[in-house]
Amino acid sequence: METIGFIGLGRMGAAMATNLLKAGYRLRVYNRTPQKVEPLVAQGAIAAAHPFEVAEPGGIVITMLTNDAALDEIVFGAEGLQDRLGENGVHLSMSTISPQTSRRLAEHHRQHGGHYVAAPVFGRPDAAAAAKLWIVLSGPAEAKMRVQPVLRAMGQGLFDFGEDPGAANIVKLAGNMLIGAAIEAMAEAYTLAEKNGISREALHEMISTTLFACPVYQNYGRMIAHQTYEPVGATATLIRKDMELVLQTAWTSLVPMPLADLVHNRLTARIARGRGDADWAELALEVVEGRS
Amino acid sequence: METIGFIGLGRMGAAMATNLLKAGYRLRVYNRTPQKVEPLVAQGAIAAAHPFEVAEPGGIVITMLTNDAALDEIVFGAEGLQDRLGENGVHLSMSTISPQTSRRLAEHHRQHGGHYVAAPVFGRPDAAAAAKLWIVLSGPAEAKMRVQPVLRAMGQGLFDFGEDPGAANIVKLAGNMLIGAAIEAMAEAYTLAEKNGISREALHEMISTTLFACPVYQNYGRMIAHQTYEPVGATATLIRKDMELVLQTAWTSLVPMPLADLVHNRLTARIARGRGDADWAELALEVVEGRS
Repeated sequence: METIGFIGLGRMGAAMATNLLKAGYRLRVYNRTPQKVEPLVAQGAIAAAHPFEVAEPGGIVITMLTNDAALDEIVFGAEGLQDRLGENGVHLSMSTISPQTSRRLAEHHRQHGGHYVAAPVFGRPDAAAAAKLWIVLSGPAEAKMRVQPVLRAMGQGLFDFGEDPGAANIVKLAGNMLIGAAIEAMAEAYTLAEKNGISREALHEMISTTLFACPVYQNYGRMIAHQTYEPVGATATLIRKDMELVLQTAWTSLVPMPLADLVHNRLTARIARGRGDADWAELALEVVEGRS
Repeated sequence: METIGFIGLGRMGAAMATNLLKAGYRLRVYNRTPQKVEPLVAQGAIAAAHPFEVAEPGGIVITMLTNDAALDEIVFGAEGLQDRLGENGVHLSMSTISPQTSRRLAEHHRQHGGHYVAAPVFGRPDAAAAAKLWIVLSGPAEAKMRVQPVLRAMGQGLFDFGEDPGAANIVKLAGNMLIGAAIEAMAEAYTLAEKNGISREALHEMISTTLFACPVYQNYGRMIAHQTYEPVGATATLIRKDMELVLQTAWTSLVPMPLADLVHNRLTARIARGRGDADWAELALEVVEGRS
């Protein structure tokens, strides 16, 4: 099996890279904080001291980074990939970033004869560890075909949104907005119930086995019903960035999104209260604690 | 089998009463607009000219009405039930009404030796016709036991929220608020996708088979993706009333509910535009048409 480059070994990236090793891929890995490569190296990955070292001409490099700026640095920085992927190389970009960044990177790789596939994922670190991510992708058809087996080693399902490299990012942003909206909705409903003598758990049990019997309401709903927000999946700081990308996209395309705005404000409030590193689902506490 | 009284033969009530007839119950039916009793009479129900005639001492009367005022008139009006249910009678109150009205009616029936059970339902008219409603109930234990077989003839599942006659109403209001929030969220997300070159249907297909694979997202989501809002299930006017009850309950119990507020405002806007009799899911059009 071929050797793949993997950059970004946070909660999500480390779990995804581990599944690639399990599937038999060889990996060259890089992470800005070098200690995080150690568990992967223990499982057989090769550590790279600089981002550009993970790439080989015509190969595949996966990036799973925090935000657009980190990805820009990994590609265009002095030690970045730059044109190392060369002819027929594929940059498989799995971070949650803006559609504009995806389109710009796609253009960059095209100029060097390579390809860019956007493939952001849905699922928390436990889903990543179980190779149960839902992956949405977009980009040139041939490159998407080539990365399919790689993606299947990390996910339980792929959804193709066409050739526009920004499309998959928009779907990912829309999905995160839907999850944030569900968290706010449950926080309001469960708190209304509780303040009127009905247990949060009883309401959660009813709605999550009937009208809303689906993963988001079951999993986030359990956290909101029981008011336990650990272990941390995605932080408030991380997802507020996503909500900013949602709003920026909405402003540009003239879509009024008052609910996305509300979710963004909730996350801003959490960060302002010093809870930026806590799970973003704590935005539910803004309702519980009676703040509007 | 015993004869049950049934008052209120709108879209929901007519379907529910039909299932009781199918289950072998005899029915005495009343509706303010008398023509609506005809299909039920054709199936064997006995028509009553006045509400009080559907009750017999110690019997069960079901009410399925539009709002608190209609129910008050049916119970306390000159031709109303008043004390006709007498000793051990059960008023099975299935309308979506305020918890305060339920508590007040429970007290009224208790004073005459009778019982009051709140049992509002989740499901649109097609679910009512298929006896697939989800029913939430609260009230005195013995009366709940007695009405169980009656409820099972109309629903696919019962959820008991204890003795407080207002509890089931609060759960129903919280549930409708969650549905309204999901409609708003999907409207924003699908419109964001569409205005950025992704089909509403493609996004709907992805989210409703993965993260949000549950009835509310599948069924309302289909309407919002395809932008078809017929046949009418529940009208904007009807559900705005529910959102008012949500907000009044929230104000009284000091729960800030900005998302419930947003849904209420959306429905108010629909009614102001002359769409009060259209399906309430048309609130999604407020986003599509670019109004904030």
